[in-house]
Amino acid sequence: MSYETIATGIEDGVMTLTLNRPDRLNAFTRVMMDEMIAAFDVSDTDDAVRAVIVTGAGRGFCAGVDLDDENAFTSARVDPKATDPAVWDAESNRDMGGVLTLRMFNSLKPIIAAVNGPAVGIGATMQLPMDIRLASDNARFGFVFARRGIVPEAASAWFLPRLVGMSQALEWSYSGRVFGAEEARAGGLVRSVHAPDDLLPAAHAIAREIADNAAPVSVALTRQMMWRMAGEAHPMRAHQIDSRAIAARSSSADASEGVASFLEKRPAAFPDTVSADLPGFYPWWSEPGWHSGGGS
Amino acid sequence: MSYETIATGIEDGVMTLTLNRPDRLNAFTRVMMDEMIAAFDVSDTDDAVRAVIVTGAGRGFCAGVDLDDENAFTSARVDPKATDPAVWDAESNRDMGGVLTLRMFNSLKPIIAAVNGPAVGIGATMQLPMDIRLASDNARFGFVFARRGIVPEAASAWFLPRLVGMSQALEWSYSGRVFGAEEARAGGLVRSVHAPDDLLPAAHAIAREIADNAAPVSVALTRQMMWRMAGEAHPMRAHQIDSRAIAARSSSADASEGVASFLEKRPAAFPDTVSADLPGFYPWWSEPGWHSGGGS
Amino acid sequence: MSYETIATGIEDGVMTLTLNRPDRLNAFTRVMMDEMIAAFDVSDTDDAVRAVIVTGAGRGFCAGVDLDDENAFTSARVDPKATDPAVWDAESNRDMGGVLTLRMFNSLKPIIAAVNGPAVGIGATMQLPMDIRLASDNARFGFVFARRGIVPEAASAWFLPRLVGMSQALEWSYSGRVFGAEEARAGGLVRSVHAPDDLLPAAHAIAREIADNAAPVSVALTRQMMWRMAGEAHPMRAHQIDSRAIAARSSSADASEGVASFLEKRPAAFPDTVSADLPGFYPWWSEPGWHSGGGS
Repeated sequence: MSYETIATGIEDGVMTLTLNRPDRLNAFTRVMMDEMIAAFDVSDTDDAVRAVIVTGAGRGFCAGVDLDDENAFTSARVDPKATDPAVWDAESNRDMGGVLTLRMFNSLKPIIAAVNGPAVGIGATMQLPMDIRLASDNARFGFVFARRGIVPEAASAWFLPRLVGMSQALEWSYSGRVFGAEEARAGGLVRSVHAPDDLLPAAHAIAREIADNAAPVSVALTRQMMWRMAGEAHPMRAHQIDSRAIAARSSSADASEGVASFLEKRPAAFPDTVSADLPGFYPWWSEPGWHSGGGS
Repeated sequence: MSYETIATGIEDGVMTLTLNRPDRLNAFTRVMMDEMIAAFDVSDTDDAVRAVIVTGAGRGFCAGVDLDDENAFTSARVDPKATDPAVWDAESNRDMGGVLTLRMFNSLKPIIAAVNGPAVGIGATMQLPMDIRLASDNARFGFVFARRGIVPEAASAWFLPRLVGMSQALEWSYSGRVFGAEEARAGGLVRSVHAPDDLLPAAHAIAREIADNAAPVSVALTRQMMWRMAGEAHPMRAHQIDSRAIAARSSSADASEGVASFLEKRPAAFPDTVSADLPGFYPWWSEPGWHSGGGS
Repeated sequence: MSYETIATGIEDGVMTLTLNRPDRLNAFTRVMMDEMIAAFDVSDTDDAVRAVIVTGAGRGFCAGVDLDDENAFTSARVDPKATDPAVWDAESNRDMGGVLTLRMFNSLKPIIAAVNGPAVGIGATMQLPMDIRLASDNARFGFVFARRGIVPEAASAWFLPRLVGMSQALEWSYSGRVFGAEEARAGGLVRSVHAPDDLLPAAHAIAREIADNAAPVSVALTRQMMWRMAGEAHPMRAHQIDSRAIAARSSSADASEGVASFLEKRPAAFPDTVSADLPGFYPWWSEPGWHSGGGS
């Protein structure tokens, strides 16, 4: 694929998705959103991809929305005082950051953020539906929305408190302060901090451990099972879904290979693929549409 | 305003709400509940208030319910064996601590707890819907309900596990043990511990950072967005609401000022006010009534 | 009671449930599942039990499902490609690990895991609905399912992210890597790590603090209130339930004793029992059946 604002490469089971506008600190545009979604469509459908690493070209990760792209966040121009629900619910009103993060929410492959430099605004919130976040010493984070007169976007009101707790999420979002990698680690936003040259190797080591050991169909199911049980009121729903998954997978060629390789103390070579072998009950949910949703 | 059991002052954008029965370690009464709610009504409607700090007069924060006020928790006297749902659902049965914490849940301004001394029972649970908690070395905490033969109240079964995790919440609540500031910090209940003289300055520093930098309408929306997405099963709901908020706020005078001040590297002077400029879709929820609610 | 695969003893208010197949590192079988459920039925109905400690005999905690017991997880053999919902929803399709963890979810007594050695697969996931987890230096943990070609079970997709956060849950589950006690502590899975000889004494100290100080009915209600509010979207539901509980318990003999013992600075002797004195509104929920459940 040829992209304008990102670059991708697949090597040894790992896709690297590089935000690639280094002269603009990889500022976010609508084209970048479209291209990132296209890249996640590739990673989902290409069985050669076992994990995705997202990083930034040059010294930045993503410096937020590009102020020169007036439609980067939203093309909607809504009168703040409007009270007609139809005005607010128009499909054209959708925040672009949320379109991207909801796409990542549905990813069939693990996504690892390797945050190499400043990550501000959408550069911070786009990381939240990624599964694992690592930072270099040069990383800086900012949920700066309140300082710009707007609000946290990209569905981050759902994601951020789940990752770092309500108090930390609010403290960072109220002040809009930019903070460093160590504070991000202490607050639970990133798992580990690395010297700049060690960042991508550390991200690759995590990706490798998955690619070398885990059955791809197991990983895809696990990802959706965990994210989608986050808001369930009772564990019964998880019991229903994992019962189906255990029944399906126990009968699979992967399970036979899993047991055999374990008993023979050798690496497993799992035959099932995500493209062909997701079980018949997948997907088990009805994806909520733009107009539906909860009531809180 | 003149109060009997609390004192309030507004200075430089920050309201300080002081629990003010120092001879009783600020023990909680029904009058205190009414007065705290009245103070939060003031903080919500007065645009001069950008953040609220709650602390205690004298050496205590709040030593729990005043045992001399027989109606402090509840005026209900219900036969424990009653099986008629109407008996349990009577409006008169409402726990006073919950009336207070649900009021704080709806606050439009950030609330910061500066816990200066013992905080036991309702003195501990009233802190949970506050956004940020700081403690002095002298603070002590106790979810002591099981030691008194009663149960955690003030909706703390909802709040506490979300703040400190299920295991820590249960361990503190099962034993009812009183514990110190450092254990509270290690367990995630407070963000930081301070020498007694440094406590209020530290709380003010956080409040100042908000008051000096953040757009008030952005802060009010952010507070409700984050707390109200805590129990949503899917991020779509957050995407719906933040799309509306981004559309509304992007067209606002605040957003213009936010971008201009950023480009000009100067402090922003946001013109929009909470009293006049909440967007037309606010509130986006139907507040659940006493008789409604979930089924878990 | 006489068991084949576990051993139990009740002493001084604490039931110890020992997984007891030491020559197999206490590998999980269907008989073990049945016997553990029987033991939790005893702990719930016997007022002499104030807390339960679960540990393993010999050098292991539980090395996962016994591969020689072909029905240990599930007796279902479902074609992975089946699309008929009735096939997936058959009661016979239920995962045995989930039947066990849902039983623990409903426990009226606190459950403390004392993880003395390797805890892999169901040996790890069975711990998640326990309230408090302690580990010895010899403990090892593994959510190894993806390495075996299957998926996390026992409703762990619901429990694990709530205990350790989404990112940590996914990282451990994607790779299936086995890890030690210190990593488990740092990641939030266990509260503390102990020398092998100190493990059971530490677990007993926690159980003792509950048994010596807390009203049993208060503890039983607290357990269900906290676990069952985990997925509620709004704190109103907690307010409804704790209002009922405060009203019921405030009128109880336990509450009188709680206040009297506090004022007299002596240990309380609570008269109410779990078997006789749960309030009339208990249970306040309709337990979801196998076929019902959410939609995410």
